[in-house]
Amino acid sequence: MLSTSSYTPPADPLVIDGVTYQSRLLVGTGKYRDLEQTRQAIEASGAEIITVAIRRTNIGQNPNEPNLLDVLPLDKYTILPNTAGCYTVEDAVRTCRLARELLDGHNLVKLEVLGDEKTLFPNIIDTLKAVEILVKDGFKIMVYTNDDPIVAKQLELMGCVAVMPLAAPIGSGLGIRNPLNILTIVENAQVPILVDAGVGTASHAAQAMELGCNGVLMNTAIAGAKNPVLMGYAMRQAIEAGRAAYLAGRIPSKRFASASSPLDGLFF
Amino acid sequence: MLSTSSYTPPADPLVIDGVTYQSRLLVGTGKYRDLEQTRQAIEASGAEIITVAIRRTNIGQNPNEPNLLDVLPLDKYTILPNTAGCYTVEDAVRTCRLARELLDGHNLVKLEVLGDEKTLFPNIIDTLKAVEILVKDGFKIMVYTNDDPIVAKQLELMGCVAVMPLAAPIGSGLGIRNPLNILTIVENAQVPILVDAGVGTASHAAQAMELGCNGVLMNTAIAGAKNPVLMGYAMRQAIEAGRAAYLAGRIPSKRFASASSPLDGLFF
Amino acid sequence: MLSTSSYTPPADPLVIDGVTYQSRLLVGTGKYRDLEQTRQAIEASGAEIITVAIRRTNIGQNPNEPNLLDVLPLDKYTILPNTAGCYTVEDAVRTCRLARELLDGHNLVKLEVLGDEKTLFPNIIDTLKAVEILVKDGFKIMVYTNDDPIVAKQLELMGCVAVMPLAAPIGSGLGIRNPLNILTIVENAQVPILVDAGVGTASHAAQAMELGCNGVLMNTAIAGAKNPVLMGYAMRQAIEAGRAAYLAGRIPSKRFASASSPLDGLFF
Amino acid sequence: MLSTSSYTPPADPLVIDGVTYQSRLLVGTGKYRDLEQTRQAIEASGAEIITVAIRRTNIGQNPNEPNLLDVLPLDKYTILPNTAGCYTVEDAVRTCRLARELLDGHNLVKLEVLGDEKTLFPNIIDTLKAVEILVKDGFKIMVYTNDDPIVAKQLELMGCVAVMPLAAPIGSGLGIRNPLNILTIVENAQVPILVDAGVGTASHAAQAMELGCNGVLMNTAIAGAKNPVLMGYAMRQAIEAGRAAYLAGRIPSKRFASASSPLDGLFF
Repeated sequence: MLSTSSYTPPADPLVIDGVTYQSRLLVGTGKYRDLEQTRQAIEASGAEIITVAIRRTNIGQNPNEPNLLDVLPLDKYTILPNTAGCYTVEDAVRTCRLARELLDGHNLVKLEVLGDEKTLFPNIIDTLKAVEILVKDGFKIMVYTNDDPIVAKQLELMGCVAVMPLAAPIGSGLGIRNPLNILTIVENAQVPILVDAGVGTASHAAQAMELGCNGVLMNTAIAGAKNPVLMGYAMRQAIEAGRAAYLAGRIPSKRFASASSPLDGLFF
Repeated sequence: MLSTSSYTPPADPLVIDGVTYQSRLLVGTGKYRDLEQTRQAIEASGAEIITVAIRRTNIGQNPNEPNLLDVLPLDKYTILPNTAGCYTVEDAVRTCRLARELLDGHNLVKLEVLGDEKTLFPNIIDTLKAVEILVKDGFKIMVYTNDDPIVAKQLELMGCVAVMPLAAPIGSGLGIRNPLNILTIVENAQVPILVDAGVGTASHAAQAMELGCNGVLMNTAIAGAKNPVLMGYAMRQAIEAGRAAYLAGRIPSKRFASASSPLDGLFF
Repeated sequence: MLSTSSYTPPADPLVIDGVTYQSRLLVGTGKYRDLEQTRQAIEASGAEIITVAIRRTNIGQNPNEPNLLDVLPLDKYTILPNTAGCYTVEDAVRTCRLARELLDGHNLVKLEVLGDEKTLFPNIIDTLKAVEILVKDGFKIMVYTNDDPIVAKQLELMGCVAVMPLAAPIGSGLGIRNPLNILTIVENAQVPILVDAGVGTASHAAQAMELGCNGVLMNTAIAGAKNPVLMGYAMRQAIEAGRAAYLAGRIPSKRFASASSPLDGLFF
Repeated sequence: MLSTSSYTPPADPLVIDGVTYQSRLLVGTGKYRDLEQTRQAIEASGAEIITVAIRRTNIGQNPNEPNLLDVLPLDKYTILPNTAGCYTVEDAVRTCRLARELLDGHNLVKLEVLGDEKTLFPNIIDTLKAVEILVKDGFKIMVYTNDDPIVAKQLELMGCVAVMPLAAPIGSGLGIRNPLNILTIVENAQVPILVDAGVGTASHAAQAMELGCNGVLMNTAIAGAKNPVLMGYAMRQAIEAGRAAYLAGRIPSKRFASASSPLDGLFF
């Protein structure tokens, strides 16, 4: 912390599937220079839930190579296996089952079934099919999806424990392309909504929280920054800033401070 | 702090006219319920420079009324007198001189010469005239201005110690209406650039810092929130988030993560 | 035409399912004051394809009431029956079949299967199911969908003759919420892409065309304007403006006219 | 015209300094391949007022070179001399006087006094000084300015016959960076407001008109397009589209069509 203050905000934990977390920032582990940088950036981010691409990351599959769990120990972090790189229902389901085996029965997963290699947009139809199979198989699913409010509600009703609409394409850094859709998803939800994918900088993360999201998941925005450790810190502050602003109740937007300057109908 | 981390970012002070400050958030004192709420919100914000509307706030002019300096003592805070409510060169100059007298020769002031009561936009012509008089009179001027890069440079060349372009109209909460102009002002400046006016929520403050601004000044966004103390905290986090993101070097925006997805020429 | 010019642009027809149309503007018939206003506004719009909500509009179902086809005769206009107000696969399919009967075997329909009454967002899952049934049944489907590029491609591959992503919620007037998604849909498409829903004013329609869309469908923006006839004219001009600008090849966006002022990575 | 319609909108002329024009599109003459392309693009645009950079364009100064007035004859077009390339009060004033001489006493000019060669932003202080001199000297001034509403009003009060705020930097093609400022300028004005500089494509021109502007001036957007003649046509249609939409009274923006979905306070 750079400035100083004696004020401490009220506790405000994130609850996913009955488990409580202090941090609302979830981070990935890809694209770092090495495991030491991964460790430092994640420590600076304050994240407690760490998502791991099971197809690309060694969490024990290869006993002779460096193991991510050596720097992110299971007693400190919740590992959230994800299905990055899966383009079919079968691949996604198989990857979740492999992850459960590797993690001794841990059944919280982040599901993504991608549409194509260029856009990395989710394939919603196949995502719904995979959810159906995995819910029956006892998984607790945090699901990557587009920003369609109807789809988000369907995923909730099928039993997903969290719904994770994209802000923008994975790795794009564009920030929230359609804030009104994210807002509508949040307003209609009974499970946590976490923005996943597309965040590029701190203000994007803060905006997601201001819209009422329960958390944000990101990877490239931190790992791809010139200084990933400092960016990890920036994102931690941004998530707390946005959440506090949401809880504090911001002033409405007006054209001018004077009472009679409404914006309604002026939406550029 | 809600989440925990052992990471501490490097010191990164704000320097205005040779004086060093730990906080890059400057706050006003208007519109609070009472002095106790003022004190608490400002404490939560971590701000060290507190701007005071000399025409509206008692800092000793009325010995029989509550004095702001009782809750914001001069040994802890830097009081920045401002000319809010001044619509002429004469009023603004007179108000600065009164402030200097009240504050025992303190010559750092925030100058604003307003254009009209409805928009509260600055009157640039009269602002320049007042700057000319006040610089000769030994004042150190932090100057409220529009977001015109040519005007900002002129104010710097006339000797202002900081230039403070608006994000949007005072009290509007609209956030940064023209980020490219703010960026151009920052790129051309040799003095600190602080966004003043128009911030409505935490992400706006973070964005100002990400554009390279040296600080942000706000009042209504905190004082007008449902919970001003929590919003003070939110803004403190947001300023640090945005500054850290700026220093950390964010990823560029692309349409897709794939290498060949430039945005250039696609500016919606 | 208000100004005068001897220039005539090259012919540039819209082709849907092998049929050629001179106008790229498609309009609805709801919400007008009366049939005469409907007729005048549609005449001013230059539209040739007129979409009709079969559940709400009399095109012969009720022989004793005014018939829309009396003012929009079939020898002049192509009537495009739509399934507005249908929230289930069954209702949508039944409505298409009723329309075909009423229109003597005409099999071009606009399919919409809505998710809920508040947002009027499409239900993508049920839309896909209805498409499957209707394609087998010989219908030529122009399909209302969200702005998800993967879903748009699936609808094309299932045999829809045109794909019609929303700009924004039906009746909102918000304009294109996510231009990059619309652009991605256009870039990937082999069938006409028409923006449907959410257009509020002329510049929105022009922007849709500039993104490369083949046409725009709207209703409320014209029927709900203070002067629907003049707005019909405005939209006709806007569609032609946007199409011509797209074909003419606009200048790229730059920060400044000088050669070295790229925008890439600066996406606010 | 591509589509056909029997509708003709009401006459709606632009009046500047008591003179009536049918077209609300004003165009420049720079950057074309040759005079024939200039002629064709301007013919397609329908423009009647043609602005000419006196320092760069031969309208008779060099008797042995091609003369613009040979392709844009004075009996058909109103030539509006401008001071492009002038960075001082003296240069601007001298250029206006030279233009008046060349055009036999014609005293309608477009004044621009630029701040620097990189941004081409106006220098407001020097613009005001030049206006003061030129008004006394009998000129009718259409003045290029920033988008500051207070400055715009000052220019009007000093006697300018039209005020021309920028949409964005000259030649940038960025479109209207701050629509609320343009709207405020329009709402406060008693003289015509024309957007000048920064338009890149047809929808930008339409948006300017929808904000209530009386016209738009552009050059690079047409001359720099791949097909300048077709873009000239596109801009003509866009100006008429935007103007008609403004006069027709667009629907308000709402989150959803349902009655109770206000946007106020939701300004992303």
